[in-house]
Amino acid sequence: MPVSAVAADRSVCAPLPVLGRDVRVPLVTGGEVDYAALDYAASAPALQRVWDDVAAYAPYYGSVHRGAGYLSQLSTDLFENSRATIAAFLGCRIEGGRGEAPSGKGGGGRREGDQVVFTRSTTDSLNLLASALPDRTRVFVFETEHHASLLPWERRPDTAVTYLNAPRTPQQAVDTLEQALAARDPYGPALVCVTGASNVTGELWPVKELAAAAHAHGARIVLDAAQLAPHHPVDITELDVDWVAFSGHKLYAPFGAGVLAGRADWLQAAEPYLAGGGASRTVARRTDGGVDVEWHTTAARHEAGSPNVIGAYAIAAACQALTEAGFDGLVAREQQLITRLREGLAEVPEVRVLSLFGEDAARVGVLSFVVEGWNSSHFAAALSAEYGIGVRDGLFCAHPLVRTLLGSAPEEPGECGAPEAAPGEKSLNAIRVSFGAGTPDEHVERFVRAVGELVADGARWKYGTQDGRCVPLRFA
Amino acid sequence: MPVSAVAADRSVCAPLPVLGRDVRVPLVTGGEVDYAALDYAASAPALQRVWDDVAAYAPYYGSVHRGAGYLSQLSTDLFENSRATIAAFLGCRIEGGRGEAPSGKGGGGRREGDQVVFTRSTTDSLNLLASALPDRTRVFVFETEHHASLLPWERRPDTAVTYLNAPRTPQQAVDTLEQALAARDPYGPALVCVTGASNVTGELWPVKELAAAAHAHGARIVLDAAQLAPHHPVDITELDVDWVAFSGHKLYAPFGAGVLAGRADWLQAAEPYLAGGGASRTVARRTDGGVDVEWHTTAARHEAGSPNVIGAYAIAAACQALTEAGFDGLVAREQQLITRLREGLAEVPEVRVLSLFGEDAARVGVLSFVVEGWNSSHFAAALSAEYGIGVRDGLFCAHPLVRTLLGSAPEEPGECGAPEAAPGEKSLNAIRVSFGAGTPDEHVERFVRAVGELVADGARWKYGTQDGRCVPLRFA
Repeated sequence: MPVSAVAADRSVCAPLPVLGRDVRVPLVTGGEVDYAALDYAASAPALQRVWDDVAAYAPYYGSVHRGAGYLSQLSTDLFENSRATIAAFLGCRIEGGRGEAPSGKGGGGRREGDQVVFTRSTTDSLNLLASALPDRTRVFVFETEHHASLLPWERRPDTAVTYLNAPRTPQQAVDTLEQALAARDPYGPALVCVTGASNVTGELWPVKELAAAAHAHGARIVLDAAQLAPHHPVDITELDVDWVAFSGHKLYAPFGAGVLAGRADWLQAAEPYLAGGGASRTVARRTDGGVDVEWHTTAARHEAGSPNVIGAYAIAAACQALTEAGFDGLVAREQQLITRLREGLAEVPEVRVLSLFGEDAARVGVLSFVVEGWNSSHFAAALSAEYGIGVRDGLFCAHPLVRTLLGSAPEEPGECGAPEAAPGEKSLNAIRVSFGAGTPDEHVERFVRAVGELVADGARWKYGTQDGRCVPLRFA
Repeated sequence: MPVSAVAADRSVCAPLPVLGRDVRVPLVTGGEVDYAALDYAASAPALQRVWDDVAAYAPYYGSVHRGAGYLSQLSTDLFENSRATIAAFLGCRIEGGRGEAPSGKGGGGRREGDQVVFTRSTTDSLNLLASALPDRTRVFVFETEHHASLLPWERRPDTAVTYLNAPRTPQQAVDTLEQALAARDPYGPALVCVTGASNVTGELWPVKELAAAAHAHGARIVLDAAQLAPHHPVDITELDVDWVAFSGHKLYAPFGAGVLAGRADWLQAAEPYLAGGGASRTVARRTDGGVDVEWHTTAARHEAGSPNVIGAYAIAAACQALTEAGFDGLVAREQQLITRLREGLAEVPEVRVLSLFGEDAARVGVLSFVVEGWNSSHFAAALSAEYGIGVRDGLFCAHPLVRTLLGSAPEEPGECGAPEAAPGEKSLNAIRVSFGAGTPDEHVERFVRAVGELVADGARWKYGTQDGRCVPLRFA
């Protein structure tokens, strides 16, 4: 496994302060309660430390790169230092100033130093990489990926994509990939894209083993760390992956930035992701009336337009805060919460937890389930309206995976007001609960209690669909 | 003119509170001074109102769209209401919920209601539009555009681009465009891209007249309002343009978001800008092993990935703040500052202001110039180090325009430490001063005084290049 399960004796971190921990929300049953944010897998609250750092910087915000003023120079340093902080957080292979790493390890050609490119999200990072693939690349991706890592690869007409069937063990994932790579037609370069932790089941994928398999077959590999980086250290060198992508808004830094970090060669050989200022070094009119452009060959090549300085700085602040808090303690605490959650749900026989790799799989604080006799949207709405708990229902932008896990056909879910999946029927939708570094014990305790009460006693209100949302309509 | 020059009798606004107005910076000559941010054209400081709104919302931040929790629903409403606020700010043609406008006015086919798509910047917005052009579109763009509006159009191999020579009057711009459109080969659809206010000279372009010319010849037009929207009302219906693009960070909302607003038909007929969750409605494995995707046909089609909620909300907050302050008063105040600036510079004969349309051209608070006998980087560094004034030097990501205005060849500027352009020689670089709604009189007064003193007495320190920056080295 790329990230080991946690020994019980590690010292346990306290929850890190996050924004919104004191927010009170109304209950349909009367009164107010502290909001329990249990949708970290979609968007995590900002760490208080991230917010404080952004607030302290904001008056000093200035234009970066070519500005001559004091705040421009300060902002330029802050922006480029943020890049360096993130590179260190990811264990990037960066040598000196020119990005040349010493060794040639890893498959698929010459190994260069890594670059950290700022994007707007994991989705954007993987679309950038998809746009930068060499001609006639074949991409290998499991059908279990979420849409951000499943869909970008067919964008270039000369890229071929092989979709791999869902494995049911980590070892099967490695075997499936190896067989597919070995059997591939002579084509061009090959890329494997794999998620580090599933956004549906929270299960960890065998990233290091998949990377070894990819490199053994002359392929490269990109790690989608959107769900992994907030929960575990991600070391690009240790995992020996070629690229890592992640998002600020899942890493407690919701200011519109994301990252693609990794090998420079494909990125710098590709056309700029966006055409515009910042990416262009020189632009001149040609005598024939056209325009000649010389593009940068640094990360700036793919960062045209004014950079999102605050977004980049917020990610760097989050990386520093997590590093200083210590991942050992954070992981230990999260594993305690996962254990409590799983024990609590195990006491409700109507709850079926979704899993690809089975009971014993290592996972982060993300878990999806269905409740026998309940429409998932209805259940999620009752958790919100009657308990002040925010979860998510649906297919979680990972339609093929969730349908595989549910055993359901790709149909529309029914209206939320009525139970949908009677005993023996299949759910069309699931409920996801997810948490992280800011989650207090009470949120998980409340969630476990709420699930038990709803299943035992039913919701106290009638629910129905309004404006596409499942909402409480009247007292039951 | 699309935006009229301002009558002198309008009531004048006070400067709007912005972050950083009390920031003190050190002077190389000793002591500290309030920082004078005169690089608004690159990045404007955040309005205090924008910051306060973002800070008030931040604890309530939650995942948008599919989240069932209270904060998710609040955040979804806030995000979509931000879109509506911006649509109103731009005077968008949106009818009811389905985006169908009543009339068929405007050229180039059926007129549909407008959509507001969130991007990360103007550069991103124009790259999105470039990716969404119908097959075999011909784009007409003046060589005077900055790189964000000059460079995106050659990205699709079947798009043809006609670069138009720099006009020297607004009327010549219209005439040049009309001749080019009339003479075009039978090709496919046509698009004109034009900036509303130059990021180099601040001069206003005849947008309404250019739009009329475009439509008369069956072409469409996109307005780059990056430099216009922070200074003037921009009404998409009144100007009769097909799209408008602008950036949050120039509109006092530097949180990583931008906007493309306008006609839906080309956007919705195009492939999604990014492939991923949020843009996809349904995804299913095919029996042949491939993957079928049904994409959204709303703005979400081009907004894959978790939206930048804070960035979108910040732009909406800025639109509201500017509307409530009143553009009449803001424009009147800015024109006073422009007049003072121009009068002050006119008293220094060594200063040459760069202009495409001449002395009397209407403009926003953006002005570029060169100083006889001075290297521009040197001059800008001295303004910063000796006066605490932040301006910009260089070619302002508008290389062909600045070289046309300077009459210089595309060469590298020399080192910054020594005077470069002796009397009679041509500068290779320029200095830009720019300001906006937060600029107090004192900043412009200090700037005018500083220019006079530097030209009369020289800099008090020796300057040289370190790490690519022009910096003070030692007392002269």
